[in-house]
Amino acid sequence: MLRTHTTGEINAALIGQTVTLSGWVARRRDHGGVAFLDLRDAAGVAQVVVREEKDFDQLRNEYVLRVTGTVERRPAGNENPELVSGEVEIIAEETEVLNTAAPLPFQIDEHVAVGEEARLRHRYLDLRRAGPQRAMRMRSEANRIARNFLHEQSYTEVETPTLTRSTPEGARDFVVPARLAPGSWYALPQSPQLFKQLLQVGGIERYYQIARCYRDEDFRADRQPEFTQLDIEASFVDQEDIIELTEGLVAQLWKLIDVDLGAPLPRITYHEAMRRYGTDKPDLRFGLELTELTDYFKSTPFRVFQAPYVGAVVMPGGASQPRRQLDAWQQWAKQRGAKGLAYVLIGDDGELGGPVAKNLSEEERAGLAEAVGASAGDCVFFAAGETSPSRGLLGAARDEIAAHVGLIDHTKWSFVWVVDAPMFEPAAEARASGDVAVGSGAWTAVHHAFTAPKPEYADSFDEDPGAALAYAYDLVCNGNEIGGGSIRVHQRQMQERIFNVMGISQAEAEEKFGFLLDAMKYGAPPHGGFAFGWDRVVALLVGEDSIREVIAFPKTGGGFDPLTSAPAPITAQQRREAGVDAKPESAIHQ
Amino acid sequence: MLRTHTTGEINAALIGQTVTLSGWVARRRDHGGVAFLDLRDAAGVAQVVVREEKDFDQLRNEYVLRVTGTVERRPAGNENPELVSGEVEIIAEETEVLNTAAPLPFQIDEHVAVGEEARLRHRYLDLRRAGPQRAMRMRSEANRIARNFLHEQSYTEVETPTLTRSTPEGARDFVVPARLAPGSWYALPQSPQLFKQLLQVGGIERYYQIARCYRDEDFRADRQPEFTQLDIEASFVDQEDIIELTEGLVAQLWKLIDVDLGAPLPRITYHEAMRRYGTDKPDLRFGLELTELTDYFKSTPFRVFQAPYVGAVVMPGGASQPRRQLDAWQQWAKQRGAKGLAYVLIGDDGELGGPVAKNLSEEERAGLAEAVGASAGDCVFFAAGETSPSRGLLGAARDEIAAHVGLIDHTKWSFVWVVDAPMFEPAAEARASGDVAVGSGAWTAVHHAFTAPKPEYADSFDEDPGAALAYAYDLVCNGNEIGGGSIRVHQRQMQERIFNVMGISQAEAEEKFGFLLDAMKYGAPPHGGFAFGWDRVVALLVGEDSIREVIAFPKTGGGFDPLTSAPAPITAQQRREAGVDAKPESAIHQ
Repeated sequence: MLRTHTTGEINAALIGQTVTLSGWVARRRDHGGVAFLDLRDAAGVAQVVVREEKDFDQLRNEYVLRVTGTVERRPAGNENPELVSGEVEIIAEETEVLNTAAPLPFQIDEHVAVGEEARLRHRYLDLRRAGPQRAMRMRSEANRIARNFLHEQSYTEVETPTLTRSTPEGARDFVVPARLAPGSWYALPQSPQLFKQLLQVGGIERYYQIARCYRDEDFRADRQPEFTQLDIEASFVDQEDIIELTEGLVAQLWKLIDVDLGAPLPRITYHEAMRRYGTDKPDLRFGLELTELTDYFKSTPFRVFQAPYVGAVVMPGGASQPRRQLDAWQQWAKQRGAKGLAYVLIGDDGELGGPVAKNLSEEERAGLAEAVGASAGDCVFFAAGETSPSRGLLGAARDEIAAHVGLIDHTKWSFVWVVDAPMFEPAAEARASGDVAVGSGAWTAVHHAFTAPKPEYADSFDEDPGAALAYAYDLVCNGNEIGGGSIRVHQRQMQERIFNVMGISQAEAEEKFGFLLDAMKYGAPPHGGFAFGWDRVVALLVGEDSIREVIAFPKTGGGFDPLTSAPAPITAQQRREAGVDAKPESAIHQ
Repeated sequence: MLRTHTTGEINAALIGQTVTLSGWVARRRDHGGVAFLDLRDAAGVAQVVVREEKDFDQLRNEYVLRVTGTVERRPAGNENPELVSGEVEIIAEETEVLNTAAPLPFQIDEHVAVGEEARLRHRYLDLRRAGPQRAMRMRSEANRIARNFLHEQSYTEVETPTLTRSTPEGARDFVVPARLAPGSWYALPQSPQLFKQLLQVGGIERYYQIARCYRDEDFRADRQPEFTQLDIEASFVDQEDIIELTEGLVAQLWKLIDVDLGAPLPRITYHEAMRRYGTDKPDLRFGLELTELTDYFKSTPFRVFQAPYVGAVVMPGGASQPRRQLDAWQQWAKQRGAKGLAYVLIGDDGELGGPVAKNLSEEERAGLAEAVGASAGDCVFFAAGETSPSRGLLGAARDEIAAHVGLIDHTKWSFVWVVDAPMFEPAAEARASGDVAVGSGAWTAVHHAFTAPKPEYADSFDEDPGAALAYAYDLVCNGNEIGGGSIRVHQRQMQERIFNVMGISQAEAEEKFGFLLDAMKYGAPPHGGFAFGWDRVVALLVGEDSIREVIAFPKTGGGFDPLTSAPAPITAQQRREAGVDAKPESAIHQ
């Protein structure tokens, strides 16, 4: 070792002793022929005093040093209680420059704001900053806590393949040409779903893996082409077993940040969440529930509200918003694909203002505030039209309002299970909301094709797909879906009935999922599981909004890595060798 | 849970109690109106007695059952001491068939031999057998032990990207088309090498990861296109630190199978290993060292032995091999690319036999047995020619002889560090032995381009590349390289000098490794590390020859997965969307 101690081990007990430290020059202050260095290593910072001008003259920020010296007590008044080593300093006897540093593109200082592109291009410098260091170490700890917890519950870690077969799961696959079978391709897995089910058929009974997954999406919002899942599957379980396991795990994780979650976590049904919050990922750190007004406006003279659904959400104090702000809401709604966001302002005197008010009947105007629970000074936003998109708009407005008005208590944790989701949704709706609808039928799976119906719909789901509820459960934290799971289909015949509802023909099912259907033939046990979006879980633990903050080398929005400049063109030789342009032979293997 | 107990929890303490078990029918024996079932779950087997004909009539092997019944003591003489539950049986009161099983392609029985193709095609059945179950659970344990050990040493687990940039490391990259940057490709990493070095530049100081790696090789022998590495890197360390860490870890792992390895492990230099064993992966469970005879034959009349190198290895008792066997050795040598394998048989009377003997001088014949340490009845094999391939042939013959003659003690563990390997080898030799020589120079790196020279060669390695030794260390177990590592280059100037020796131009270095060279500019610390071939380590722990036995879903020789039939053709739409055929634009990102 090029050191005898880390800075985390330097304290008053070592006074008088000679130590060797190695690290980076974090800061240098000169005081008349003496230099004070903050020497930084992974454990923290220690103060080094260099008296020889020839030693300190050459030193610059981020030079890598090895310093040997004596530990002494700092002069009275110079202690730094924030450092482990804050009572002492090291009087350097020997300083060796292990490496130099060119002038930096940005300072290694948490308080200096740096653009994300520059940070990621020089991620090896960014990682030296306190925030990213904390994020990386928290991630490692979260991994460890999760694995230990699952080990104690007799779970076996199994690594599943990543060069595998394309199996549609709701997004596009990344594909990899197979040089030894020219014209054939591997796919990178969107999740270990099928393999973890096969492991259950294989009698592993309790499986987990922190698994790399791949989805080739249009990197909207905060998505990464590769991401991590904590993936769990078990045999002979029902929904309550998986929920209990997951709650135990989440409780352990949140202890890392000294939060006691308590158990059990609250639950809400999918339909109730949609009705009250307009989303299946409700943020329950604040109220602001939606009010359905379809009945209230059932005889309205206002053409816009003569709709299958009318609902409202209240913005407390919103009546005093300037016109500019109210216009901005319209723009916001239009960006979401709505026509606009109707509103009524409730004056201090209770009178209704805004363009909608005059279109309502006198009776409607009189009762409105009470119907939606609004007070003088509030603004009421409306959505009218088809139920699902209208609720979606109000749900999104609810989140925006809470952020604007400052209703979110950022010290609060809101966990909620969303259960009893529908098994199927109309394929057209799935496509309209940007998902890939698997199969060519009128219906597609809300979770995925391997999700079992709740037992009471086992017989009827194919006769009335819209009414069937799935044996599925999603875990939501502060408005983020942090994981989801289900009890799976384990009987071949039921799996075929589900494929049938989704318009996946027998031939197509055989071609794409034949190995799963085969496996179900040979004594597949009842099984179910869960998967955490691990990047999101860790981001919540470190208090970051973006999952990029908890990924060592993340990609930017377009799937581009500013550090290595990947992706990049390949050579003609690579292309030729990879067999990219070969026609697949009918017999591709030996 | 669909059970109250696993079979591993069933014992005499439960006699008289009602329990519910779930599992598979492993065996069924009928005895006059009563069926005895072996019910198997992940914990083991328990005996279930079913008296109702309607219950057992339908049961077949591998049906999935849920059985509720009373635990009773087995009749005297019927105990099975090999089972945890062997003193008792469960008298079934209720049996529920959770799933049926079609007739199996092979029996779930360790004692039935099944071809590998069939096993892998139905891997979900194969995994139910005791051997694969044991292998999967041992792997999970090895992962756990390794992570705990490294955690205790303050190592941080960091997940590095797998959609990254092509960086030549001695094999071909798998490439992945990037749909959002048509014509550009990601590469799957051959190892996290560059990222783990960047993490050191980023001040992580102690990193590890159980990392998936990818090499697109001509799957000779026991290679997989995707494989697993236990990857380690640390800052401010020297070779002794990494060796000590690694030895501590290996000691913990072998405790899993009750083997106490002791420390320190023996070391041998690369040159000595080549000289004495003809390989840099010597199996030291047996002796049979090579004897160099170049001097001995320096005036030989035998043309074949008038060579830069002549050496020999002795096959004890080999003189009595039939002619057919001696011919087979010639075939074996030719398959390895040699012309043949010259030999001399030492008769019981000490007289030399075989075709070579008569070509030697009388003096050479007289002293030969003593020179090679052979006795009456032995066979002496020779290789003559260039030093390196000749030693390679003898080293391989040594392994074959040991296997043939039964010299290998399979209860023994031979660990040895191979140190002081050359930094460079002639590129032509690397290519001749089937490696990809990175760079276009006369020399290529024996380890990789990021390996530092030993300090004493730091100044001279580019003047005399053939003489420089690398600061590298490989760990060999029973003749398998199970891991390797090195102290890395951390100074930009030295890295550029190494690229220069390898014939990598400045422009090429900038293009391929610019981000690494940049990172070295900004205060890169001295660092080094290690990587275990994790599949091989686990295979050794479970006593399997092939790494396929410790991979949940392995591929066969051609990179083909008999289970999912991957790789497979992709659709025209997938191909179009992936941008496979697009020309890369010069500016590929936003």
